Amino acid sequence: MMTLTTRSAAVPLKQVKLTDPFWSSYIELVREVVIPYQYEALHDRIPGIEPSHGVSNFRIAAGRDEGEYGGMVFQDSDVAKWLEAAAYSLATHRDPKLEEQVDELIDLVADAQQPDGYLNTYFTVKEPEKRWTNLTDCHELYCAGHMIEAGVAHYRATGKRKLLDVVCRLADHIDTVFGPEDGKIHGFDGHQEIELALVKLYEVTQEPRYLSLSQYFIDERGTEPHFFLQEWEQRGKKSFYRSVLHAPHLAYHQSHLPVREQKEAVGHSVRAVYMYTAMADLAARTKDPALLEACDALWRNMVHKQMYITGGIGSTHHGEAFTTDYDLPNDTVYSETCASIGLIFFAQRMLQLAPKSEYADVMERALFNTVIGSMAQDGRHFFYVNPLEVWPAACRHNPGKAHVKPVRPGWFACACCPPNVARLLSSLGEYVYTMNDDTLYAHLYIGGEVEVRFGDVPVKVMQNSALPWDGDVTLTLQPEQAVEWTVALRIPDWSRGKAGLRVNGQEMNVEDITQDGYACVKRVWAPGDTVELAFSMEIHQVRANPNIRGNAGKAAIQRGPLVYCLESVDHGVPVSSLSLAGDPKLRSRFDPNLLGGAVVIEGAGWLEESDDWGDEQLYRSSPKKMLPASLKAIPYYLWGNRGENEMAVWVREQPHTG
Amino acid sequence: MMTLTTRSAAVPLKQVKLTDPFWSSYIELVREVVIPYQYEALHDRIPGIEPSHGVSNFRIAAGRDEGEYGGMVFQDSDVAKWLEAAAYSLATHRDPKLEEQVDELIDLVADAQQPDGYLNTYFTVKEPEKRWTNLTDCHELYCAGHMIEAGVAHYRATGKRKLLDVVCRLADHIDTVFGPEDGKIHGFDGHQEIELALVKLYEVTQEPRYLSLSQYFIDERGTEPHFFLQEWEQRGKKSFYRSVLHAPHLAYHQSHLPVREQKEAVGHSVRAVYMYTAMADLAARTKDPALLEACDALWRNMVHKQMYITGGIGSTHHGEAFTTDYDLPNDTVYSETCASIGLIFFAQRMLQLAPKSEYADVMERALFNTVIGSMAQDGRHFFYVNPLEVWPAACRHNPGKAHVKPVRPGWFACACCPPNVARLLSSLGEYVYTMNDDTLYAHLYIGGEVEVRFGDVPVKVMQNSALPWDGDVTLTLQPEQAVEWTVALRIPDWSRGKAGLRVNGQEMNVEDITQDGYACVKRVWAPGDTVELAFSMEIHQVRANPNIRGNAGKAAIQRGPLVYCLESVDHGVPVSSLSLAGDPKLRSRFDPNLLGGAVVIEGAGWLEESDDWGDEQLYRSSPKKMLPASLKAIPYYLWGNRGENEMAVWVREQPHTG
Repeated sequence: MMTLTTRSAAVPLKQVKLTDPFWSSYIELVREVVIPYQYEALHDRIPGIEPSHGVSNFRIAAGRDEGEYGGMVFQDSDVAKWLEAAAYSLATHRDPKLEEQVDELIDLVADAQQPDGYLNTYFTVKEPEKRWTNLTDCHELYCAGHMIEAGVAHYRATGKRKLLDVVCRLADHIDTVFGPEDGKIHGFDGHQEIELALVKLYEVTQEPRYLSLSQYFIDERGTEPHFFLQEWEQRGKKSFYRSVLHAPHLAYHQSHLPVREQKEAVGHSVRAVYMYTAMADLAARTKDPALLEACDALWRNMVHKQMYITGGIGSTHHGEAFTTDYDLPNDTVYSETCASIGLIFFAQRMLQLAPKSEYADVMERALFNTVIGSMAQDGRHFFYVNPLEVWPAACRHNPGKAHVKPVRPGWFACACCPPNVARLLSSLGEYVYTMNDDTLYAHLYIGGEVEVRFGDVPVKVMQNSALPWDGDVTLTLQPEQAVEWTVALRIPDWSRGKAGLRVNGQEMNVEDITQDGYACVKRVWAPGDTVELAFSMEIHQVRANPNIRGNAGKAAIQRGPLVYCLESVDHGVPVSSLSLAGDPKLRSRFDPNLLGGAVVIEGAGWLEESDDWGDEQLYRSSPKKMLPASLKAIPYYLWGNRGENEMAVWVREQPHTG
Repeated sequence: MMTLTTRSAAVPLKQVKLTDPFWSSYIELVREVVIPYQYEALHDRIPGIEPSHGVSNFRIAAGRDEGEYGGMVFQDSDVAKWLEAAAYSLATHRDPKLEEQVDELIDLVADAQQPDGYLNTYFTVKEPEKRWTNLTDCHELYCAGHMIEAGVAHYRATGKRKLLDVVCRLADHIDTVFGPEDGKIHGFDGHQEIELALVKLYEVTQEPRYLSLSQYFIDERGTEPHFFLQEWEQRGKKSFYRSVLHAPHLAYHQSHLPVREQKEAVGHSVRAVYMYTAMADLAARTKDPALLEACDALWRNMVHKQMYITGGIGSTHHGEAFTTDYDLPNDTVYSETCASIGLIFFAQRMLQLAPKSEYADVMERALFNTVIGSMAQDGRHFFYVNPLEVWPAACRHNPGKAHVKPVRPGWFACACCPPNVARLLSSLGEYVYTMNDDTLYAHLYIGGEVEVRFGDVPVKVMQNSALPWDGDVTLTLQPEQAVEWTVALRIPDWSRGKAGLRVNGQEMNVEDITQDGYACVKRVWAPGDTVELAFSMEIHQVRANPNIRGNAGKAAIQRGPLVYCLESVDHGVPVSSLSLAGDPKLRSRFDPNLLGGAVVIEGAGWLEESDDWGDEQLYRSSPKKMLPASLKAIPYYLWGNRGENEMAVWVREQPHTG
């Protein structure tokens, strides 16, 4: 059972300035390309791509334009996520032009708000009489949640209250519509999001009604009679989507059971992790042991039985959902980018509940593999689905793999993932450290400067990190005066405990001071004190639990936080024809020419000869001839950047027998 | 390019009496259980299963009962397929009770026929004004085709004309509705079947209009303007199925191109092979070289690039369809029973065009593995989908595998496969031999007696076969007088040419007399002459073309015509944890206790130890411990008969390196 003996809180974004050589390029890409590009996309100004209608819908709802609503029913959330991402960017990087764009867009959003506080352009423009009649399908509270997150982020970044006031009025309105009282709707949204947003709103406003409303949504979910089924009956058994003829699947929305009784991650994976995030948020504030236990059980099930090695979750595109324990197919996988982002949210909240390195390990795994892998280096193409094995011909011709794309497509009509990547990366500073009354925790090794207080003493901590290419990390502390404090440093799982730690040049025994995966250095810190970490960057051949059927006989290659993959472009044959030698003697090498420079891993392997197979021969008895081959693995996050080709994370290896 | 120098024709069913120890049990099961059970099912008299409505629909259409139409729009075809199967059974086995049931049902069918010859209970009962308005979805010609096949089979079996007359009137009616003339519909059915049926009807009636009409449907298909799209427009862009919102997919119905331009097997696999069968039928009769070449190209593509080792076809349940070359996933496979049956039809027609052993090899492969594997030994449970790898938990929880059942379910609401198995097995005699002016071809080694004529001389040929357990086959010829003739004996692909052949005890050099896979023994046959064949029953570890990604590093086990599989019930671990040793020393043993007795194959292998994995550990670096293990493989056709458990045809093997 979890206890809350050592809660900590994230260090606010404004206090963290990232200057990491690896991550800065991503953050700059988001700032300089993704956010401006998405701004244009929201304004339907990018030739050749489907119009977003995002801004246009708000203009119509605000009475500024005539016209028809366009896009998905939840199109508002793209505008909200863009505002949130832009706000994060403004928190750490002044940009008058962006600030003006944000202010203008906020004015528009405010104008689109209805006199009673309601804010949703679909129902305002298209079906005003149907407000709150189809929570299952229509994402009204989901969109509200995203706008609330944007309002909170903008206020925190700029101190400006305009959007915050808008979303407070919106939340107040929602509070009049939903709740246990007679006459209110005893319901909740089909897509969780409002729950975590209301906790954030509570944090900046300290208005307890917002926390209560979040708690209400969480507590009500999954209780009987089932709200979604009642709604379905009331709507005459009609879905918002014409092709959906069946009643809502409760598990898809994690509403099959009261949340405290849920022990296994089920249903739509993004909905799930957004909900778990809110549950952890509430558990931290209410100390509700049943909620804490549910968070713990759901974490363990998801991370220990249903997570890809890349930090991806969701094994099937049917419902973009979890399936069952150990069912982690590599080629029909979903592993949505947004789901890994939600997993990072959940991990961040769990870290705040209890500093266990496992939470940060998972956060780092999802971040360094699935999340950055989802984005092309032009910032304009994104994977929604992040497969671990791709054969382009099958993706094109086998409908069971049609969701798997061999190269990153451009901005989609349903644009959930790219704005989510933008808001995560532009707020990345919030994920690096947490603090409590006696300890500063370093969870991620991303270079930059953080300003905190050790008690009354202002302290700057400079971090230099050579990750992901090398394992050297240095923290330099600059307290305004000497002060006793604990600095807790995560020992990553991938170092396998092989970590050196020197304080002011003096080696310490890491094992002796490590608790829950954090090396805790308690001392009187003086200006200029340094902590040097040296993590093993040994290359690992990782094996999967034998219950994961598809990975039997295979290994994945990992070095530091990065998972590697083989691409056929480097080998000229189907990647399935390759296998690792019994002792592949894997070695790493920095290749400056690979997609901006990356460490590649090379080693000995075998190739099943295919030249001697006729074009029209499917099966034969003679053994396959095996030829020695040199294998080259590249970081997973870089896959699919060199044209359409085959890719595999899990590679057959010679079994160790005898 | 194919030539027609050596056409042959099937020996009619009535002349072939099968008494094979292996196959007789199946044929008896069909006669004694399947046909009676399906008769009861068609009459809605089986408690606990969904009513078929098959007979009830005919009673309503005939005006004998009041009531509502029930079942699928093509429910009539179940009645037709049952009549056809029963007719085949009557052809070889007198059964007055069955004959009476058949006659009664034929009376009912005749009563349901409309004055103009139209016969389809759905449109007669439910939407009489919509006849011939939705060929794409509604299977009117498909149902007609099955009834025509039944009429032909019944006439051939019993000499009774009643159903034959019904279907001639039906075909005459169809001929007034479809054709190139003005005022007729220039179209064809969404599900091919009528085409092959009309050729059969032509064969018994010699009415050339039936052959022309078949040819018309084949020639019209895939031409522009596209009939299905025209129909779709005319219907106001509505499908028969409410949830289908898109226009017809032409390739699904093999109507994307004129048939002579089709080179690759695409779309719904049953539709495809039924069409290819008719194409081969027509090519045999018209000698149209373009049609012959299309048959050849489609055969080669399907069999050499898109066929499972079990003789299954159709890689995806989406549209029950082909996908693309070498895309043969084992676990998300479709491999519908009906598709393998249709493949057998096509192979039988190709054999008649040209006696090449490959056609019979495929026929035998599909028959001994997928077809008999689809049926439980109680004759009441059937697989529609015939996977090569099954993990029951994933079938239950991963919607991408929901179509794969770990045990044979009972009679379905959509009952295409069981009646198809019944009609194939009850007419199995038709697949064993073909004849032409100078040669008797033995394609399958199934014991029994066939009555033919070598020129003017009546000849009985008795076949004894020890297949599939042993490789000894004896044919004894009893001509009424000595006569010169050729007896051509297929040398199966699985014998790898290791075949002994003795005529009257004297060894012959098989290689010298083999042409296109048939050992041709030309001589003057005297009464009592014997041909003894001894085929190697060596166990083969079969490897797949390296383009089949999922089979890389794996082998399948085959002995004689039987493909083998591992089941977890014999090993107590996930089958994916098992691999074949480098030299597994496979040996066969008859196990009298295994499901009625079968040869099992045993050998040495390795087991990835799973005990040392924690319940909550997904990934780790340490190598997997491999323990020596004894593997036991059972014939694929027997899988899934010992409760729910894991199964795999393709097993990892130690690669041969160095």
